[in-house]
Amino acid sequence: MEEVLVKEMERVDDLQCKGLRLIQNPEGFCFGIDAVLLSNFCEIRKDWSVIDLGTGTGIIPILLAGKTQAKEIIGVEIQEEVAEMAARSVRLNRLEKRVRIMPQDLNKVVEDLEPYSFDAVTSNPPYMNEGGGLLNPESMKAISRHEVKCTLEDVIRVASRLVKDRGHFYMVHRPHRLVDIIYLCRQYKLEPKKIRFVHPNKSKKPNILLLQCVKYGKPELKFMDPLYVYEEDGSYTEEIHGIYGRDCMDENKDVE
Amino acid sequence: MEEVLVKEMERVDDLQCKGLRLIQNPEGFCFGIDAVLLSNFCEIRKDWSVIDLGTGTGIIPILLAGKTQAKEIIGVEIQEEVAEMAARSVRLNRLEKRVRIMPQDLNKVVEDLEPYSFDAVTSNPPYMNEGGGLLNPESMKAISRHEVKCTLEDVIRVASRLVKDRGHFYMVHRPHRLVDIIYLCRQYKLEPKKIRFVHPNKSKKPNILLLQCVKYGKPELKFMDPLYVYEEDGSYTEEIHGIYGRDCMDENKDVE
Repeated sequence: MEEVLVKEMERVDDLQCKGLRLIQNPEGFCFGIDAVLLSNFCEIRKDWSVIDLGTGTGIIPILLAGKTQAKEIIGVEIQEEVAEMAARSVRLNRLEKRVRIMPQDLNKVVEDLEPYSFDAVTSNPPYMNEGGGLLNPESMKAISRHEVKCTLEDVIRVASRLVKDRGHFYMVHRPHRLVDIIYLCRQYKLEPKKIRFVHPNKSKKPNILLLQCVKYGKPELKFMDPLYVYEEDGSYTEEIHGIYGRDCMDENKDVE
Repeated sequence: MEEVLVKEMERVDDLQCKGLRLIQNPEGFCFGIDAVLLSNFCEIRKDWSVIDLGTGTGIIPILLAGKTQAKEIIGVEIQEEVAEMAARSVRLNRLEKRVRIMPQDLNKVVEDLEPYSFDAVTSNPPYMNEGGGLLNPESMKAISRHEVKCTLEDVIRVASRLVKDRGHFYMVHRPHRLVDIIYLCRQYKLEPKKIRFVHPNKSKKPNILLLQCVKYGKPELKFMDPLYVYEEDGSYTEEIHGIYGRDCMDENKDVE
């Protein structure tokens, strides 16, 4: 079975979660701690319909399928090759009944999907808003990291269009974009309700943020206690060990 | 001299900074760590004109007069009795040449002052947005703590009207209002540029935020390393000792 699903140059990683595995191409963008933290941060209830915008390797839908009782999880990915690889990961995990990968531009997928029909939308979008000066804006890594094919506003606008009233929107992003994120979320009626900052260690400023918004939620932002990745001695903190399997961190880490 | 300036029921506190002192009424709102942290966070250059909105006891103008080489610092306070007490603190410190207290509504002060004429605006505004259900909305403490006389939007609108292009706006507030703060600041062209979260200790979420905005600034928010108030053993951290005199913390602390 695996011989058919995995291509030359690809590798299969164990996600340290209920035997789930993921196909990745080491030449492309490999999943990082961000996607794992976001999957852990999401509060997805039984029988929910979820959609992940810019799903890449499919890491978030596959982890959510393992961790939650969501009924259906769709992953949308514009890069055909990457979407095709994600679809093979879904088959590798025998998740075809719950997880579906759509190889589409998220700005166009809106036309094919029922508006206001999802209980939750998730996204680990490109972080960098300077797409203009890239040497190769069509490369897989550039598309995953820079706002070449979709902007932050595209992601938030599409999320707002797809999520039900009182439905959830979950995003992982970088703190330096916090003002853009908060401004756009409120503008598109996705009220930021809960935030968690992730710090490399206790003396450093945060380098990752996790945000929960609620469609038409009442204004008031709840802060969670900070999440620290490393102890003073450079080892992972207990909380990170709890979230993230001990064996898969180093080789997959891909934090910019 | 002091006999004339200080009334019965009032007390004089040593600010632990260049011999500065402050008159306070223990029945009213006494300054807290927030005002001290904000004064320390501000980057005020030589010969700048500064205005503090909702100045209360005058703590921020008096500390800034001591810590910086600002040319002129105005404090605006709507409560006449409180403004009169602040003006006596200014005289007590012989700062009349640089610090002036205006007993006015900040929504009206705009009409008396030149627009876009200040290099920096500071504010430690009321934090609570539920002014409606108060037992006594006219009490001094209620006016200082709740948005009875001015809303967050009033403070930000007035700040934007008074500050020069590229001038600074500094505010201390509570994290649960972060979305309102960021949304309004950007709406009024005060772009949030630098933020610092203050945590009670390393394992707790922040309970104070310090924000620097720049009028017409370029979008990109810089995070500072977190500021922790207490060590694990309950003593103040080194950084807090550096900011805040050792002797004046406990009796003046007034954090809600």
